[in-house]
Amino acid sequence: MRTERDSLGQKEIPDSAYYGIQTARAAENFPITGAPVHQELIIALAYVKKAAALANMEVKLLKERVGNVIVMAADEIIQGNHMGHFIVDSIQGGAGTSINMNINEVIANRSLELLNERKGNYAACSPNNHVNMSQSTNDVIPTAIKIASYQLSQKLLATMRALAAELRNKERQFNDIVKVARTHLQDAVPIRLGQQFGAYARVIERDIRRLEFASEDLLLINMGATAVGTGLNAKPEYIEKVVQHLRELLNIDVKSADDLVDATQNTDAYTELSSALKICAVNLSKICNDIRLMASGPRTGLNELLLPPRQPGSSIMPGKVNPVMAEVVNQIAFQVLGNDHTIALACEAGQLELNVMGPVIAYNLLQSLKIMNNGIDVFTRYLLEGLEANRERLAANLEYSFSVITALNPHLGYEVAAQLVKEALKTGMSLRQIITERGLLTQEELDVILHPDQMTTPGIAGEQFLNEQ
Amino acid sequence: MRTERDSLGQKEIPDSAYYGIQTARAAENFPITGAPVHQELIIALAYVKKAAALANMEVKLLKERVGNVIVMAADEIIQGNHMGHFIVDSIQGGAGTSINMNINEVIANRSLELLNERKGNYAACSPNNHVNMSQSTNDVIPTAIKIASYQLSQKLLATMRALAAELRNKERQFNDIVKVARTHLQDAVPIRLGQQFGAYARVIERDIRRLEFASEDLLLINMGATAVGTGLNAKPEYIEKVVQHLRELLNIDVKSADDLVDATQNTDAYTELSSALKICAVNLSKICNDIRLMASGPRTGLNELLLPPRQPGSSIMPGKVNPVMAEVVNQIAFQVLGNDHTIALACEAGQLELNVMGPVIAYNLLQSLKIMNNGIDVFTRYLLEGLEANRERLAANLEYSFSVITALNPHLGYEVAAQLVKEALKTGMSLRQIITERGLLTQEELDVILHPDQMTTPGIAGEQFLNEQ
Amino acid sequence: MRTERDSLGQKEIPDSAYYGIQTARAAENFPITGAPVHQELIIALAYVKKAAALANMEVKLLKERVGNVIVMAADEIIQGNHMGHFIVDSIQGGAGTSINMNINEVIANRSLELLNERKGNYAACSPNNHVNMSQSTNDVIPTAIKIASYQLSQKLLATMRALAAELRNKERQFNDIVKVARTHLQDAVPIRLGQQFGAYARVIERDIRRLEFASEDLLLINMGATAVGTGLNAKPEYIEKVVQHLRELLNIDVKSADDLVDATQNTDAYTELSSALKICAVNLSKICNDIRLMASGPRTGLNELLLPPRQPGSSIMPGKVNPVMAEVVNQIAFQVLGNDHTIALACEAGQLELNVMGPVIAYNLLQSLKIMNNGIDVFTRYLLEGLEANRERLAANLEYSFSVITALNPHLGYEVAAQLVKEALKTGMSLRQIITERGLLTQEELDVILHPDQMTTPGIAGEQFLNEQ
Amino acid sequence: MRTERDSLGQKEIPDSAYYGIQTARAAENFPITGAPVHQELIIALAYVKKAAALANMEVKLLKERVGNVIVMAADEIIQGNHMGHFIVDSIQGGAGTSINMNINEVIANRSLELLNERKGNYAACSPNNHVNMSQSTNDVIPTAIKIASYQLSQKLLATMRALAAELRNKERQFNDIVKVARTHLQDAVPIRLGQQFGAYARVIERDIRRLEFASEDLLLINMGATAVGTGLNAKPEYIEKVVQHLRELLNIDVKSADDLVDATQNTDAYTELSSALKICAVNLSKICNDIRLMASGPRTGLNELLLPPRQPGSSIMPGKVNPVMAEVVNQIAFQVLGNDHTIALACEAGQLELNVMGPVIAYNLLQSLKIMNNGIDVFTRYLLEGLEANRERLAANLEYSFSVITALNPHLGYEVAAQLVKEALKTGMSLRQIITERGLLTQEELDVILHPDQMTTPGIAGEQFLNEQ
Repeated sequence: MRTERDSLGQKEIPDSAYYGIQTARAAENFPITGAPVHQELIIALAYVKKAAALANMEVKLLKERVGNVIVMAADEIIQGNHMGHFIVDSIQGGAGTSINMNINEVIANRSLELLNERKGNYAACSPNNHVNMSQSTNDVIPTAIKIASYQLSQKLLATMRALAAELRNKERQFNDIVKVARTHLQDAVPIRLGQQFGAYARVIERDIRRLEFASEDLLLINMGATAVGTGLNAKPEYIEKVVQHLRELLNIDVKSADDLVDATQNTDAYTELSSALKICAVNLSKICNDIRLMASGPRTGLNELLLPPRQPGSSIMPGKVNPVMAEVVNQIAFQVLGNDHTIALACEAGQLELNVMGPVIAYNLLQSLKIMNNGIDVFTRYLLEGLEANRERLAANLEYSFSVITALNPHLGYEVAAQLVKEALKTGMSLRQIITERGLLTQEELDVILHPDQMTTPGIAGEQFLNEQ
Repeated sequence: MRTERDSLGQKEIPDSAYYGIQTARAAENFPITGAPVHQELIIALAYVKKAAALANMEVKLLKERVGNVIVMAADEIIQGNHMGHFIVDSIQGGAGTSINMNINEVIANRSLELLNERKGNYAACSPNNHVNMSQSTNDVIPTAIKIASYQLSQKLLATMRALAAELRNKERQFNDIVKVARTHLQDAVPIRLGQQFGAYARVIERDIRRLEFASEDLLLINMGATAVGTGLNAKPEYIEKVVQHLRELLNIDVKSADDLVDATQNTDAYTELSSALKICAVNLSKICNDIRLMASGPRTGLNELLLPPRQPGSSIMPGKVNPVMAEVVNQIAFQVLGNDHTIALACEAGQLELNVMGPVIAYNLLQSLKIMNNGIDVFTRYLLEGLEANRERLAANLEYSFSVITALNPHLGYEVAAQLVKEALKTGMSLRQIITERGLLTQEELDVILHPDQMTTPGIAGEQFLNEQ
Repeated sequence: MRTERDSLGQKEIPDSAYYGIQTARAAENFPITGAPVHQELIIALAYVKKAAALANMEVKLLKERVGNVIVMAADEIIQGNHMGHFIVDSIQGGAGTSINMNINEVIANRSLELLNERKGNYAACSPNNHVNMSQSTNDVIPTAIKIASYQLSQKLLATMRALAAELRNKERQFNDIVKVARTHLQDAVPIRLGQQFGAYARVIERDIRRLEFASEDLLLINMGATAVGTGLNAKPEYIEKVVQHLRELLNIDVKSADDLVDATQNTDAYTELSSALKICAVNLSKICNDIRLMASGPRTGLNELLLPPRQPGSSIMPGKVNPVMAEVVNQIAFQVLGNDHTIALACEAGQLELNVMGPVIAYNLLQSLKIMNNGIDVFTRYLLEGLEANRERLAANLEYSFSVITALNPHLGYEVAAQLVKEALKTGMSLRQIITERGLLTQEELDVILHPDQMTTPGIAGEQFLNEQ
Repeated sequence: MRTERDSLGQKEIPDSAYYGIQTARAAENFPITGAPVHQELIIALAYVKKAAALANMEVKLLKERVGNVIVMAADEIIQGNHMGHFIVDSIQGGAGTSINMNINEVIANRSLELLNERKGNYAACSPNNHVNMSQSTNDVIPTAIKIASYQLSQKLLATMRALAAELRNKERQFNDIVKVARTHLQDAVPIRLGQQFGAYARVIERDIRRLEFASEDLLLINMGATAVGTGLNAKPEYIEKVVQHLRELLNIDVKSADDLVDATQNTDAYTELSSALKICAVNLSKICNDIRLMASGPRTGLNELLLPPRQPGSSIMPGKVNPVMAEVVNQIAFQVLGNDHTIALACEAGQLELNVMGPVIAYNLLQSLKIMNNGIDVFTRYLLEGLEANRERLAANLEYSFSVITALNPHLGYEVAAQLVKEALKTGMSLRQIITERGLLTQEELDVILHPDQMTTPGIAGEQFLNEQ
């Protein structure tokens, strides 16, 4: 054990630990979820620390001897090392000071090691004066959240594009199948199964566009804002250089926000991103509900879609196969909606020059991004790719339904058509039979009017038989 | 009273009523909120009916004699007449069939009157066959919701722009005032009051951009989709013409959605719009919280902002004046967030070819648009325009605080600076006094380093005195 | 017009108006929703004013001449008069000061009229000094919200009890019908339809118990708390008497809260009530989803339940009848969930000695109570009472499914049973046929094991044929 | 590696793994959050499996040789062993089939090991036929969720009781301190600081009562319901015995639900529990907001409360100490509110005989219980216990404010009093000075009327000087 000191006193730290006294205080103060900070956020922070050290050296605030080992330590974290030393909980005290100090201390102590100094000997390399030089939690943490969110958004966008492409595949594959559409869960007019999947593709394509739009704001970072956006203790040249380094190191087009005060206190980039995820989650959940409904059966449900079996469905009912890949996406959607709620509450609670609720925002936002990516990926590969239409059942249902009745409106009027349905349901006779027996239309006219295929594109069937009303 | 019939039976209708049997059934079925459908939605529906009648005449489905009176009746509604005949509740059966039939019946009966026919004599002009010709609830209602939402969005955007402009005014007006920033509600570094209002302006400007982006999707309407988007019973020329008429009548750039099936079943345009409102509501609520906090007092609060008094604040505490204009905006924000939740739930509940939850979506979405517009308008005019800074108090607070301490970091190091604050708080001595007594820095150096004005722009105060660390 | 003055200046008031200057200011300040305050809340306030006047007379603070006319004016409001003079918006400035002053002014001016004094001549009867005597917005408004909420809760409870009773009716009516249960929307084991409705009854009965529990806290009122709960300017005898008068006038068991400071600042009674409503709304929505699903059809859905037709279902599809009474309850549920969200946000925003967000809380809470009452009432009468089972379809589905397979587990083992289902689905053979052909069980054993009726109560079918495993 | 088979095919399993093929499928299907199922839920499941094995042996379905090793294996899990073999994600396919099969397989393979059989040799001890005997995911998982929730509720209740007790301590400790109350964040009448903490204690005490009420329903479990509540394949004696064993093993008073069909499909016990947590979270967040506000400073805020410093508050601003323990509780509250939202969505999505959304419900519900417990615990110990009042500042604020003005109402009338405040604010004169100069009241009368101490209990100061109005 070694003893470390800060302005509040001293504390024993395990000598093997790269973290220091402030991290230890935070671990004691916040034993909340048991979940450490998302690794993507820690790595983004490491990039920030590396870029800051490079910039500080270039503006001659930081000696190369110290700066170079800071860069080396940061690189090790970027490679995924030292993760066990990040012991601060995801939900922690305000603003993320604790996770910032956690990485400051890990880098400082690892740097000291690289300098052949004792851990804790912060005169040689201090978490605050060297690693955090020209920085504040209040610029470092928002920047890192935005970087991690942007990177995960890009990953998610790729996964969403694969989903949209697969939905377009299904549109083509199912384009020749006419089925009974349902509105209010009641049998409605005919539609092609391909049209249904085309509509799914289209809404996901809009989700992609929305997420692209929302993720743009993540590129505007507030490095150099320091405590409240005024840039106190950050040299203008440093600000320029640190952003440039981040851009190059990450290979993403981060830019300095025009108004650093705004960028430090306002969190609308998070609510905006989370909203885009929420909108998509609502759409996904609706699609999954549809698929589960159309795959209901195998005997006494609609049974119009056949899902690839992924696992036995029940511990007690043999042979049961459940739509688990859709169910898991429903649940992911509910999680994302709840997370969005948490994020909105946390953003509303911002006060004056800083929103201190960043930790819970980051915890939920990065989780939403990750679980949506994971869920959409397996949904596409394990459900959609192998999805088949039950052509026999779809055709039988179409035949058995009254879905063609609407095509008679222009010819017989709504009220007469309604009476026909009522009578057909009561007597069990076919619509065609009743109509011809009553002489309302001829068999030849009905052949033209009641053909389901043409009902799936705009137009009035048998328009030639109509008079102006 | 007159007797009307439909496929379910017959019903007595007051003879003065323009509505008919289906409306009467709906009024009986849905005595829910007591709030009628938003007038903006009824008027948008009237535009839809007018445009459809014009298009139906042009494609020779509807005789001019009937079509012309339908147009006249619709125009009367557009002028704000007949509102008492729209008796269907805001929350009604699925899809809005009832409000569609309500307007179909009102127009049909008013048309019959104009044709010198008896009300209820639907052979001459039928709610379904003539007024609703080439239409379905499922294209008419989404189109009308989008039109009303778009119009209210444009109105709201104008109000938001006035808010942003007034915030920019305040930025200029308060630009010379340096105050103590607070983070975690604890005294932080100096900042200009103008910067605070600039940050508010900036976030509202982004809200404007987001709302503009979200409202674009509202312009894609599904007229001609009829029941499920396939366009059954809608001639292609009709579809083209009805959209063109709407564009001209409304003078807004509505367009036919590329994929009418998608546009009929997916409701992401609503979740997207509501999300944009929600993000703005979160931002507004934060701004109002800040203003209420900085205006707290008049004696024992921060007392840094002076709000124009709008009404006596208490029925018991004389002389009390409360920040009511900010409080009402907070409450509006909470309402908008709750509405957004309802909208998301309703959108998620869409099934297959139609989302039947349109009525509750429209009720909440249009309310959110209206109350945000109303609230922002009075907030701008009654609070912001007359808002003053309490310059004396702001200056006194700045003087009394330790907010300049951070400027010493580069010179003394974080740890030494922290000790100085601790000692100053304990002894009541000034920082300057302690520093000079200990010979840490000279009076001259301190004059340069501790000057608050320069602390509000990027840079290191007294950089010339520094060594590389 | 008459001119009125207050501490902020003067204002012209229409001479016919009972409201005065503070109401006029509020109407100008808060043109938000267009919805006036719920009438139930205004009437509850009138009771509070009446009880306070009676108590003030008894403790000799208020002269009988003035007190008696205040009582008369309050009684008129209780009868439903003067509602047009309550012009303050539902969403208004904090705490409800404006609606409290609205009623204070209406009563004062109506009292002046009864005293043959000019309206506005407040020396003779003042809104603040006489009508609001011993009171503050901060005790009057929470008390009135609790009274109105309690009364509406009792009404709702009666409606919920009728729903539960009708569900129990259905349980009995459907008790002899065996159907295919579904889990994951996939065919599962047999169950009686009566069991399904019994489960619905049971959960609603628990909702009743929860609402009873939650509404109890509404009986604890804070009259006499005045501004912050300390009772400043309220004599102890007055406090005792005002609560006693309310108890007698309303005939509900209101009591003085033990801790008036707590009762003034904490709003957990509202979140608690709203949560009880939300839990019930979730349950109702699930029940409606089930009913809509089982009533899907009429040809290509499950078609196991037959709903009473309430109105034609479509403006375009003739003969369509939709489950509108279930759909409206779904939408009510979504509204109640959104309202609950708003209420939670508003309650969280309480600060220090008072939660000023009362107006938006009352607006949403009373709406939730009313729409749930209205919706459950029509759902019970218009959907449930006439609901029928489609016995033929239910029997056919049961016959066609593999729902009996689970009963084979104890006899053949899960793995073998799973193979049988797979083979039956592939070959189209019946389970019975495959089993006997392979000699797994005899026809006699199968007659015992596969009998669906017994499967709906606990036990192992054909236990006599089993060996210990 | 070993090869395992199920009805869908075969799969290679690491030979060291206790889990089997179905777990491996689930791990492949659901790589969602990365968070394994809460350990509390796994242990509750192990208790269920143990109790079921004991009951199955007693009713002679399960041979002792097999049953005894199942009990041994379950006991090992209860002790916390084998946790690395539970590899199924928290968010998984519907109903929790995967986690049920995970424990079935772990117990089966560990049992085989104890029987000196090869892992995977399920004839000797099968996950489905032996470990899951008389059970279904649909009774096992709800039962385990309820057990884990109940246990965590009891733990949370103890922590909440400690919080309430500490708040009562503060009530006593601060009872002699009179401070300025604030309503609308504006200075209001005097109140004792002890009264404030008494109000906090009271609301937490109600939260305790609510949680006790809500947690009662958790004791009603549905063991023996099997697939849908009908008890198919569960002998009545088994049902009785398995519940009795659970009661004894867990030492909590679990009971068999009266209606197993209801208990299998309805999830209101979860929404109810989550609502109780949410209500408490709202109250906690409000208390934390108050404390952060009153502790604002140290120089330019209210500065009326002094929090024990827990860690340096800033990486850049030396000497800053932030209210981190309150901030973390705010964030926990936001998380709990978001989780409640997810839970409500998941409960609403239940369909027919089973709610398949159990996994996401359990994930959120157990997290809410744990983080509230953890957060309240550190809040009580690290913030409340060491909390001090800043007596000098409180007294100075009281002196400086006009908070006594309300006591003048009964003597001078509201309007006159309001003018006095206005004049005092304008001129800087004291109220007392203005009043005596104008001869409104004498110094002696003012001495009685304006004494702050008496203002904190009900009554009219200087009542003896009053006339009836």
